[in-house]
Amino acid sequence: MDQEQLRALLEQVRGGSVAIDKAIESLRHMPFEDLGFAKLDHHRTLRHGMPEVIFGQNKAPEHILGIAEKLLERNPNLLATRVSQEAADLVRSQILDAEYFPLARVVRVWRDRKVLGKGKIAVVCAGTADLPVAEECRLTLEVMGNEVDAIADVGVAGIHRLLANLERLRQCRVVIAVAGMEGTLPTAIGGLVSAPVIGVPTSVGYGSHFHGLAPLLSMLNSCASNVTVVNIDNGFGAGYSASLINRL
Amino acid sequence: MDQEQLRALLEQVRGGSVAIDKAIESLRHMPFEDLGFAKLDHHRTLRHGMPEVIFGQNKAPEHILGIAEKLLERNPNLLATRVSQEAADLVRSQILDAEYFPLARVVRVWRDRKVLGKGKIAVVCAGTADLPVAEECRLTLEVMGNEVDAIADVGVAGIHRLLANLERLRQCRVVIAVAGMEGTLPTAIGGLVSAPVIGVPTSVGYGSHFHGLAPLLSMLNSCASNVTVVNIDNGFGAGYSASLINRL
Amino acid sequence: MDQEQLRALLEQVRGGSVAIDKAIESLRHMPFEDLGFAKLDHHRTLRHGMPEVIFGQNKAPEHILGIAEKLLERNPNLLATRVSQEAADLVRSQILDAEYFPLARVVRVWRDRKVLGKGKIAVVCAGTADLPVAEECRLTLEVMGNEVDAIADVGVAGIHRLLANLERLRQCRVVIAVAGMEGTLPTAIGGLVSAPVIGVPTSVGYGSHFHGLAPLLSMLNSCASNVTVVNIDNGFGAGYSASLINRL
Amino acid sequence: MDQEQLRALLEQVRGGSVAIDKAIESLRHMPFEDLGFAKLDHHRTLRHGMPEVIFGQNKAPEHILGIAEKLLERNPNLLATRVSQEAADLVRSQILDAEYFPLARVVRVWRDRKVLGKGKIAVVCAGTADLPVAEECRLTLEVMGNEVDAIADVGVAGIHRLLANLERLRQCRVVIAVAGMEGTLPTAIGGLVSAPVIGVPTSVGYGSHFHGLAPLLSMLNSCASNVTVVNIDNGFGAGYSASLINRL
Amino acid sequence: MDQEQLRALLEQVRGGSVAIDKAIESLRHMPFEDLGFAKLDHHRTLRHGMPEVIFGQNKAPEHILGIAEKLLERNPNLLATRVSQEAADLVRSQILDAEYFPLARVVRVWRDRKVLGKGKIAVVCAGTADLPVAEECRLTLEVMGNEVDAIADVGVAGIHRLLANLERLRQCRVVIAVAGMEGTLPTAIGGLVSAPVIGVPTSVGYGSHFHGLAPLLSMLNSCASNVTVVNIDNGFGAGYSASLINRL
Amino acid sequence: MDQEQLRALLEQVRGGSVAIDKAIESLRHMPFEDLGFAKLDHHRTLRHGMPEVIFGQNKAPEHILGIAEKLLERNPNLLATRVSQEAADLVRSQILDAEYFPLARVVRVWRDRKVLGKGKIAVVCAGTADLPVAEECRLTLEVMGNEVDAIADVGVAGIHRLLANLERLRQCRVVIAVAGMEGTLPTAIGGLVSAPVIGVPTSVGYGSHFHGLAPLLSMLNSCASNVTVVNIDNGFGAGYSASLINRL
Amino acid sequence: MDQEQLRALLEQVRGGSVAIDKAIESLRHMPFEDLGFAKLDHHRTLRHGMPEVIFGQNKAPEHILGIAEKLLERNPNLLATRVSQEAADLVRSQILDAEYFPLARVVRVWRDRKVLGKGKIAVVCAGTADLPVAEECRLTLEVMGNEVDAIADVGVAGIHRLLANLERLRQCRVVIAVAGMEGTLPTAIGGLVSAPVIGVPTSVGYGSHFHGLAPLLSMLNSCASNVTVVNIDNGFGAGYSASLINRL
Amino acid sequence: MDQEQLRALLEQVRGGSVAIDKAIESLRHMPFEDLGFAKLDHHRTLRHGMPEVIFGQNKAPEHILGIAEKLLERNPNLLATRVSQEAADLVRSQILDAEYFPLARVVRVWRDRKVLGKGKIAVVCAGTADLPVAEECRLTLEVMGNEVDAIADVGVAGIHRLLANLERLRQCRVVIAVAGMEGTLPTAIGGLVSAPVIGVPTSVGYGSHFHGLAPLLSMLNSCASNVTVVNIDNGFGAGYSASLINRL
Repeated sequence: MDQEQLRALLEQVRGGSVAIDKAIESLRHMPFEDLGFAKLDHHRTLRHGMPEVIFGQNKAPEHILGIAEKLLERNPNLLATRVSQEAADLVRSQILDAEYFPLARVVRVWRDRKVLGKGKIAVVCAGTADLPVAEECRLTLEVMGNEVDAIADVGVAGIHRLLANLERLRQCRVVIAVAGMEGTLPTAIGGLVSAPVIGVPTSVGYGSHFHGLAPLLSMLNSCASNVTVVNIDNGFGAGYSASLINRL
Repeated sequence: MDQEQLRALLEQVRGGSVAIDKAIESLRHMPFEDLGFAKLDHHRTLRHGMPEVIFGQNKAPEHILGIAEKLLERNPNLLATRVSQEAADLVRSQILDAEYFPLARVVRVWRDRKVLGKGKIAVVCAGTADLPVAEECRLTLEVMGNEVDAIADVGVAGIHRLLANLERLRQCRVVIAVAGMEGTLPTAIGGLVSAPVIGVPTSVGYGSHFHGLAPLLSMLNSCASNVTVVNIDNGFGAGYSASLINRL
Repeated sequence: MDQEQLRALLEQVRGGSVAIDKAIESLRHMPFEDLGFAKLDHHRTLRHGMPEVIFGQNKAPEHILGIAEKLLERNPNLLATRVSQEAADLVRSQILDAEYFPLARVVRVWRDRKVLGKGKIAVVCAGTADLPVAEECRLTLEVMGNEVDAIADVGVAGIHRLLANLERLRQCRVVIAVAGMEGTLPTAIGGLVSAPVIGVPTSVGYGSHFHGLAPLLSMLNSCASNVTVVNIDNGFGAGYSASLINRL
Repeated sequence: MDQEQLRALLEQVRGGSVAIDKAIESLRHMPFEDLGFAKLDHHRTLRHGMPEVIFGQNKAPEHILGIAEKLLERNPNLLATRVSQEAADLVRSQILDAEYFPLARVVRVWRDRKVLGKGKIAVVCAGTADLPVAEECRLTLEVMGNEVDAIADVGVAGIHRLLANLERLRQCRVVIAVAGMEGTLPTAIGGLVSAPVIGVPTSVGYGSHFHGLAPLLSMLNSCASNVTVVNIDNGFGAGYSASLINRL
Repeated sequence: MDQEQLRALLEQVRGGSVAIDKAIESLRHMPFEDLGFAKLDHHRTLRHGMPEVIFGQNKAPEHILGIAEKLLERNPNLLATRVSQEAADLVRSQILDAEYFPLARVVRVWRDRKVLGKGKIAVVCAGTADLPVAEECRLTLEVMGNEVDAIADVGVAGIHRLLANLERLRQCRVVIAVAGMEGTLPTAIGGLVSAPVIGVPTSVGYGSHFHGLAPLLSMLNSCASNVTVVNIDNGFGAGYSASLINRL
Repeated sequence: MDQEQLRALLEQVRGGSVAIDKAIESLRHMPFEDLGFAKLDHHRTLRHGMPEVIFGQNKAPEHILGIAEKLLERNPNLLATRVSQEAADLVRSQILDAEYFPLARVVRVWRDRKVLGKGKIAVVCAGTADLPVAEECRLTLEVMGNEVDAIADVGVAGIHRLLANLERLRQCRVVIAVAGMEGTLPTAIGGLVSAPVIGVPTSVGYGSHFHGLAPLLSMLNSCASNVTVVNIDNGFGAGYSASLINRL
Repeated sequence: MDQEQLRALLEQVRGGSVAIDKAIESLRHMPFEDLGFAKLDHHRTLRHGMPEVIFGQNKAPEHILGIAEKLLERNPNLLATRVSQEAADLVRSQILDAEYFPLARVVRVWRDRKVLGKGKIAVVCAGTADLPVAEECRLTLEVMGNEVDAIADVGVAGIHRLLANLERLRQCRVVIAVAGMEGTLPTAIGGLVSAPVIGVPTSVGYGSHFHGLAPLLSMLNSCASNVTVVNIDNGFGAGYSASLINRL
Repeated sequence: MDQEQLRALLEQVRGGSVAIDKAIESLRHMPFEDLGFAKLDHHRTLRHGMPEVIFGQNKAPEHILGIAEKLLERNPNLLATRVSQEAADLVRSQILDAEYFPLARVVRVWRDRKVLGKGKIAVVCAGTADLPVAEECRLTLEVMGNEVDAIADVGVAGIHRLLANLERLRQCRVVIAVAGMEGTLPTAIGGLVSAPVIGVPTSVGYGSHFHGLAPLLSMLNSCASNVTVVNIDNGFGAGYSASLINRL
């Protein structure tokens, strides 16, 4: 039952052609989401500042293109993660202002570049091997309207490089720390700044790294109290949560 | 080298009794943290709004009391987590305005009740078994200067109770979702609000729950993009991070 | 907004004192669950045939008693699982027809003994060590209105005992197989009957049993296609699901 | 010893040419399955409504074709799961009415379309990535004689879409909930319906998902009591068990 | 149907009072295990040389006593493992020749001391902490009729002690190697003898030992080809299998 | 120091040109393995009945051929496991009587076909997918001089097929049970025979099978006492140990 | 065969009463370790600077005392780890100069206080909860003849405290870093010093710490190349290895 | 602020153009690492004897070449690990004295061959499959200025081969033991030598080996006290730590 149906019902009530008890019963059996609840979806863009993102993994190129075209009808911006080169080529052949970032495997359409966040967000990573995840994070932050300060090659085993960037870190409202190997970066940063820190473990490592388990556990057990964690390699999720925080 | 030493050195430079090359050398060998770096520690309270918290587990009652007394010399507020009844009794015998919350196993001294957060923070939990963790979280939030809206008994298997609290949830700047069992609460809430959500898995469950592993993995894999996670049973950490966010 | 409020609103619509657009707006902002959605909860008993069960673990005896008394106000039957002897004694001192089953650690009030299931349900277990879980399962089934055929000491290493009970098993509409150790019972039964089989791994074992992980994995990988699985030691859950199936 | 041999023996007993003691001894040493026990196998189709299914993984195309042809001699219907395109092409070149469903990787021969189940079975899944498993499930249900109501794109993070399908779910006798990521769908549905719910975790996810472990544990620990679980990606097993339930 | 019933049926066949078709039908519906199949159980002692063993864990003292008395009616020897001192005291108060071995937590009644094995079996362990498991193994071997050569304190880190016992090891038909810590003993022995070696990992260790997982994996991955493995701490199982081998 | 050196030393002792104290000192510093200890290696063939086997995985084809040719100089028989088709082709081009078994991925040279085992060994497997491992086992047994009774397609979910082969199983001195999925076959067989049973878990399965972990744990926790276990997919190891047992 | 036997044999060779061939044969069959190999054991003290240490866990107090008394007969120093207060009391009642360190649970007899190491060894730990393990390490180092520089309360989240101790760390030949929680200390130190660093993960933590697994994995995956690792809580092992290095 | 800036500031202090208080403030806000702290990096070569190593995995060939050229500007030697053939070809086309070791997948430039270590380091491995890791280790040791004694094919199952190399092992200052399978080599060696032993588990194995977990756990639980461990397959890390020890 959409609003037209509801309006019709209420007009019948007013006109007396439907008894109040019967109207109550009808309302009770209406699919409730049509009584305004569907605004959840319609206002999703308004609430979070961007539409549903496309998770490209395991999706056919044509499928990705189809969703992208449909989403762009009602939103100026688009983000698709984990997109293969092949799928990106297809999307870009039809959506001419779509960009592809092969390192991050992200397709982005960025038509509305309004800044929505109140301050800067730092994206720090330790090694070049963590760059794909850090890059996915940066692209997410930008398309959601944030200024980003990306700092690479800042590991704990060379802690002076971290300390050298301390002032930049302290000027950010949120810090995202991306780290594979033993995953100590969020802990080290957490002890140096008073901003909330979001740790992103990456699957970069080998042996007892177990595809990211080592830095994940390390971050969850951080002795710095201002660290929260997202899934392994989830640069997008870290960027998304940080964006919400930056709008507060 | 503290500031007095630094001042003395500079005065010797000015007076000419120390050559510039020698002064550079002296500066190079000074423990650098004394050149102002120690402000990290001194301004910690200012930065985060409260001093080092006492993690009471595996600490002797006398030890906890000693640290507590020392910390209270320079801070009005104190939080000690995972404190046994025995240790709490000792602390309260000496620090008269200390409160003990046996469910959360927290000792709190709350002398400065200034509100520092800009909005409310929701602490939601699913079952009565999650209450100890939710309570630790609430006490942390309060002593760090936040208004808290605590909502209990809101599980996903009875989703109407969650929906009935939707308006309250939407009025909060941050939502903390505490859940054991299968840990779905953060995901369900994450889809309903536009605030950042911090998930706290609890060790409540049995069998393949593996002491909190099940809800931890569930939360890390949340299909809601606005969820970050802290360690199992880490109500304090969730409260700490949420406090930082709420001051932004 | 409850039904009285809804009725009042509709009468105002009929009387013309509220415009239809305004009524729509009011409906839109009403907590939707009050528009009949709350029936989810009210009719819960009717739907599943029994009220919320009390999970007694980590609950204080007084707490369990309180919930039990409240639930018995609107339901004739009650089941509380994982109840200590101490809590059971308290409950039985106040609720005189409550029974305690120490092996299964279950408290049961069974006032309405109407049979609701259409056939028998078998509860089979391999060793005496599995009896507590099998017993929790049997008590759940009974209080939910099922005839139960309990068969103990039927292991795969002595397969003739299983085969000797084949006819009894084949006369049941659902078979629940409770097994620790290597957990093969559901698979063996699954190949012999055409009924749905629910496997319950138990935490009985040692070493590489890992508190039930071994039979859990064994059951999930069963080469018998008619086996589904519940959590380790979850005799209640198996009984609950089997009850629903037996009413079909 | 088949029945002919048994008959011959009994006739010798009747005729006196074999002494009773000797007949007992002969019976004792007969392969017992020939004394009627083999009916287990012969009546398998009758009991479960379909023959042995072919699990195509790791089987050569020629092997799959050979089994398929043999099984079709005595059964009108056939299901082969995890079949490669190459194997499917071979099968379809020889069995002309065989269909191949590449998404589900299933080959199906569906000659006898009699409805055997008493009601409808819902197959619900959260994301497009879960569709292969949901599809395997649907195809199994159909070929075993069930009416299926397939509902896609119903996740917990967008819970209104789940609620919008509530009436459809409530009209089904069994609900199968297929979910990757954090695997909350069975729990959310379990709280809304009174039917038995079978959860199928899928291997869709990344990082700490551990190829399906996250949703598997989530479902096993469900706070909804009417959920049982099958192995990761085991759409066939869920469909098989649901079919048996639907015939009750 | 026991043999008397079968005999009666055959006599009716001979006498003509039961038609052959009807006799076949009767045979088909007889519980087959009564047609001699039950010999599996009756002859169990004969086959394996000893009756069902009592696994004492989680069993009440009275329960253990009851089973023990019943088993001793038909068998001269008895073994009960994982028996508490309390239960052992009860058993010994009633069964006067029962011995209790507190280190191994075994109760043994050893009335028939006939040697059944063809040669000696070595039981080797590395440290004093492994002695309880080695002792359980030795007691099992003895009561099953084997000569045992027990060799303690033979670890790989002091390999000369192992080599010093080489001749003793080479004179045994089977070697059982019990080891906690890193579990290398079976591998080292396996390379020195040509007998089959059974490895028994023990739960002795700490940290990343994970209650026996480390030596279990070590033994399963042994580079010595003549090593098979039993469950962690399963001294009984190793002794049982070795006994069967020693009778060949 | 080889025997010639030892002989020379002793002759010097006899001749008086070396003092006894000096001879003792010389002996003390001789590499001890040269004093006959090296017989360990030389007599390896004699002890175990065959030389070192080639584990072909991760070895280059030329490398495999080289080892094979060298081993064949002193042994009539050869076994190489986990050999690729490419490596096998190379080996067979040079060693003309070498056979390749592509299912088992084994190369075998079987020139000396003397039977060394005292009885038959059964190799039982449940599904066609377990055949490669069962085949590796069978080939190992044969080349080590055993009569093999290979029984396929005998699963626990169709237990009558297992029972139908009972007599064959009971005529074997050792039974090797190869099983993937839930791995119950060794347990079921263990309860039916009095021979030692060696379980071989296979990596055949999916989802929570975890590449063989499920059947491995199942077998280690077997409630049948006569089961020992080897590593996942280790058909060779099972065959090797069984061969040693069969020669006893 | 001890040296007396060897001397006798050689004298018979010289005297001609034993032929050389026979002497070779005798030597071949002598337990080789008696030909000087046993020096491994006798010279153990000399090699490592201290005798076998007593691992007190799971040993009875009398047992510990007995071993201690025996070891002290030939060594001036003794270390016993994981000793209960009760056992320590017994030991100290008999060995008057034995000390007990209840925090570390170590008994030490330190009669020979000669310094054997060439430089200082640092033992660094992060929190007071790690002190028991750090203390076990320090006591081991001292009794093995090392100068120790113990530095506590130096965590990564307060990195200035670590940096403030940099000069002390750089003056040590080996650094042992003891850490629970997320275990980052060895990595941070490894980047600051050029000495070898030995990481000791501790079991201090909760939730996803998994009793030390988190810091263990963190240390194994350290991005600092000069870090090696010992078992969780193995302060003794770290001290032992560091002692050997410090004597180089 | 570099030294020039610091000199300028001090000259202003001396000249009186900057007040002392202001100078203190300036110093306080200077990036501290510029006050000499940066020597950490500049002197890295001097401290450890070689520059940052290139971890080639997941790096593009051009990227590796670029880093290599830059590093060679200030260092004579270079090591790049986990380098593909393709990347190696590119590097060698530009850096003419670069060598590629395909087994170890290492590129090395070794211009300065000065010996820095004080003694020899042994690199021992058990099987040919462990050679790639042992080779990575050897190449690291050499380029860091050590004499290496590489010993292959020395496994525990053929322990005489290990004993035969005892004297060589005992002449080394550090022993590195590389082992896959069950990983016992470090333990066996640790009991035979008084040098520190570094264990390197390799991922060579199958089934329950879990890609190196089995030998990793085995080594961490070694009953030899002089063993420390590095990550699975981390030949470089073992070589690096051993080099530091060898310079002591």
